[in-house]
Amino acid sequence: MADTDRTARAEALLDEIFTPAWRQHGVAWPTATGLDFARICTEHCYADAWARRGSLDLKTRSLVTLTALAAIGSAEELKLHVRGALSLGHAPDDVAELFIHLIPYLGVPRMVAAMRCAAEVLREHARR
Amino acid sequence: MADTDRTARAEALLDEIFTPAWRQHGVAWPTATGLDFARICTEHCYADAWARRGSLDLKTRSLVTLTALAAIGSAEELKLHVRGALSLGHAPDDVAELFIHLIPYLGVPRMVAAMRCAAEVLREHARR
Amino acid sequence: MADTDRTARAEALLDEIFTPAWRQHGVAWPTATGLDFARICTEHCYADAWARRGSLDLKTRSLVTLTALAAIGSAEELKLHVRGALSLGHAPDDVAELFIHLIPYLGVPRMVAAMRCAAEVLREHARR
Amino acid sequence: MADTDRTARAEALLDEIFTPAWRQHGVAWPTATGLDFARICTEHCYADAWARRGSLDLKTRSLVTLTALAAIGSAEELKLHVRGALSLGHAPDDVAELFIHLIPYLGVPRMVAAMRCAAEVLREHARR
Amino acid sequence: MADTDRTARAEALLDEIFTPAWRQHGVAWPTATGLDFARICTEHCYADAWARRGSLDLKTRSLVTLTALAAIGSAEELKLHVRGALSLGHAPDDVAELFIHLIPYLGVPRMVAAMRCAAEVLREHARR
Amino acid sequence: MADTDRTARAEALLDEIFTPAWRQHGVAWPTATGLDFARICTEHCYADAWARRGSLDLKTRSLVTLTALAAIGSAEELKLHVRGALSLGHAPDDVAELFIHLIPYLGVPRMVAAMRCAAEVLREHARR
Repeated sequence: MADTDRTARAEALLDEIFTPAWRQHGVAWPTATGLDFARICTEHCYADAWARRGSLDLKTRSLVTLTALAAIGSAEELKLHVRGALSLGHAPDDVAELFIHLIPYLGVPRMVAAMRCAAEVLREHARR
Repeated sequence: MADTDRTARAEALLDEIFTPAWRQHGVAWPTATGLDFARICTEHCYADAWARRGSLDLKTRSLVTLTALAAIGSAEELKLHVRGALSLGHAPDDVAELFIHLIPYLGVPRMVAAMRCAAEVLREHARR
Repeated sequence: MADTDRTARAEALLDEIFTPAWRQHGVAWPTATGLDFARICTEHCYADAWARRGSLDLKTRSLVTLTALAAIGSAEELKLHVRGALSLGHAPDDVAELFIHLIPYLGVPRMVAAMRCAAEVLREHARR
Repeated sequence: MADTDRTARAEALLDEIFTPAWRQHGVAWPTATGLDFARICTEHCYADAWARRGSLDLKTRSLVTLTALAAIGSAEELKLHVRGALSLGHAPDDVAELFIHLIPYLGVPRMVAAMRCAAEVLREHARR
Repeated sequence: MADTDRTARAEALLDEIFTPAWRQHGVAWPTATGLDFARICTEHCYADAWARRGSLDLKTRSLVTLTALAAIGSAEELKLHVRGALSLGHAPDDVAELFIHLIPYLGVPRMVAAMRCAAEVLREHARR
Repeated sequence: MADTDRTARAEALLDEIFTPAWRQHGVAWPTATGLDFARICTEHCYADAWARRGSLDLKTRSLVTLTALAAIGSAEELKLHVRGALSLGHAPDDVAELFIHLIPYLGVPRMVAAMRCAAEVLREHARR
């Protein structure tokens, strides 16, 4: 499969998880090397991981991605994937239930910070 | 609900996830304070988290627990919960598929270490 | 002991460490699940840990809590517990002395970030 | 060598890496203990590490410092050292190339966050 | 103060915390650069941190050091400092009480791993 | 470029960094999914990162890789890449010098653990 296929496969997944709204985002550093950086990040996540589907459906992949992001304290990416979780069909309280499960594993301070991020997106979503 | 209920609720879950085999494990430091340590760890994980079930079934809780443990590099607990995942009905390749999903989020070295731990348990299981 | 006792025990400690001012804080995500999240966080920290007192008095528990929060880079929780440390009777320079001790263990960048957070609270406190 | 030599050695390096502009920065908590904190941080980094030069020149030390800061998610220090990297003669795309190299080792979310910080400094630099 | 004073100051503290038994340990990589590595590690911890004493006595410094080491999952250093805690006058259960306090902050898996390390030293100590 | 090119590009780099000796290593979990796991890890590191060369030569990539691995406490991967560093032409003391540089950034306990791993490989190498 050609590299253009990798990119296409990644973009199809991004459309499915985040709706085509993601296409409006710019790139942090838009030189050739900066564009390579953005492309490799996208392909690693979406062509090499999410696009496999198989024994893990997209809703389950959403929960384990939220877990990984809460564990490493990645605030901006966590908000993005809470949006993805809702758009893939999770209820807001699924995210809260996941975060309760993670308290003993990742500790209270990390989960309080994660909930603060998530709640920002959940409240926005509730208002709509 | 009384504290004895918390303990009972935690132990019922441990039986369900790990089979009653877990009851043969000793305690690292068996003074009154050391026993409190062990009891609080068990109650936090099993009475306060796993026992809630609700919108997350045990098989899903197993995958997000494996994710959290891979993220913090907790080798012994990871092996324990790979055993739990198999006993809850996951196929060995579900664990491998989960770990592929996590490569871009947690990085190659952390996932190679997690796979090395998990494969030890998976090979043992395959031999039976 | 009943669950209502756990909550009462946690709240008594919160009053003692932070003064009843903490009661004015809202909850990040106020559904039933979101309230469970907040209650479990509070009980784990204050009913299961701080309320034990015993061989570690509250002022010592304050210092080890600050250490744990600096180690995991938990900015908001660190500010909260610097306030707690002052209200429990620590001098502002006790925090600075603690942070000097931690430089070789946690590294300069983590401690510079922790000091930046703490100094915000310490300067506020000095102005009063 | 006397302690005043340690301070002088550290300050000479700071001048070389960041230009004397760093001398305008204040100290987070300016009591005697707070000043000790700042001095020890500076001496550990610049008198004990950077000033050794030897088999690692300053440009290489810059790249490994950026790597360490990206790994621990130290946003403010990362911006500071991207400025240092440019002032020591690295091209902006050297930073982007370094960050591409680190994606598989530190994971996409950590590197996206690092690139967001770095790009802020790189765009500022490009505008001049 | 001359560098030889830094070394002497660090070694006096090492004698006090660990008894002169530490002097029998070898160095991991005994070239000139490897010896510099060992010396700088020792001076940062013992001349720059522990030797300050001041508002934090050695027994308190012991508890916050154990906390930092549990937080970063540093098994070998944790065992060393559990030995130090006992030799400075802490009871074995002080360590267990500290670890109970840290469960909600650092999470169950990290503290179970820390207790496993500590219990090895505590059991050895109990046997004497 | 086709996927077979990605694999070939990764393997050429592995030959160059580690000599073809790496080809004797088995795979942790040799099902189709387990082989995918291994292939993706290899391609992310060697086809997407190391093979770019460009403004960062292989010897520099070796140092920043060692830094990332020391930062995340990845013992087995660290030993592998110390072997790679020596085979790419670094002197043993280059590794020790790098580790001295990282003490203030990553903290003493992490670097003592990294040096313990590295020294195992360096002593083996010195014996030959």
